[in-house]
Amino acid sequence: MPRFIDVHSGFVGVTEDQLREAHERDLAAQGEENVSFEKAWLDPASGKVFCLATAPSKEAMNRVHEKAGHPTAEVYEVSIEVE
Amino acid sequence: MPRFIDVHSGFVGVTEDQLREAHERDLAAQGEENVSFEKAWLDPASGKVFCLATAPSKEAMNRVHEKAGHPTAEVYEVSIEVE
Repeated sequence: MPRFIDVHSGFVGVTEDQLREAHERDLAAQGEENVSFEKAWLDPASGKVFCLATAPSKEAMNRVHEKAGHPTAEVYEVSIEVE
Repeated sequence: MPRFIDVHSGFVGVTEDQLREAHERDLAAQGEENVSFEKAWLDPASGKVFCLATAPSKEAMNRVHEKAGHPTAEVYEVSIEVE
């Protein structure tokens, strides 16, 4: 299954509880699109959120974000991974 | 130890071997700065690279990138993480 990283902006000063609440909406919407979120990281100083997920397509990622209420133009298919 | 995600641009069309070679330079430089890279993901279509690491500070991250030859202005301290 392809892997994606999406980037959201504007989450300045957001707390862990608030991030969890926002991400719960992704998790609630992911099943019907066959998307599986693995992790979300937030830098509350810059307001950047990074989510790591697997999904059948970028369009499926976009639909989950739309349903969760936080669409983003930044969804990257990270087809290469090294350690 | 604080966790960071850094973002690099301009890696359009880069292969897994080329990413590995670039990242090996990070790995060679990380020890003396007490930085520990966990993973690097690349979207070769957009040229975006995302690296996940732990480090004592953003400055330590910047020094490793400088030594590795691929500095970036985008280094985010992701102090909040949810699953």
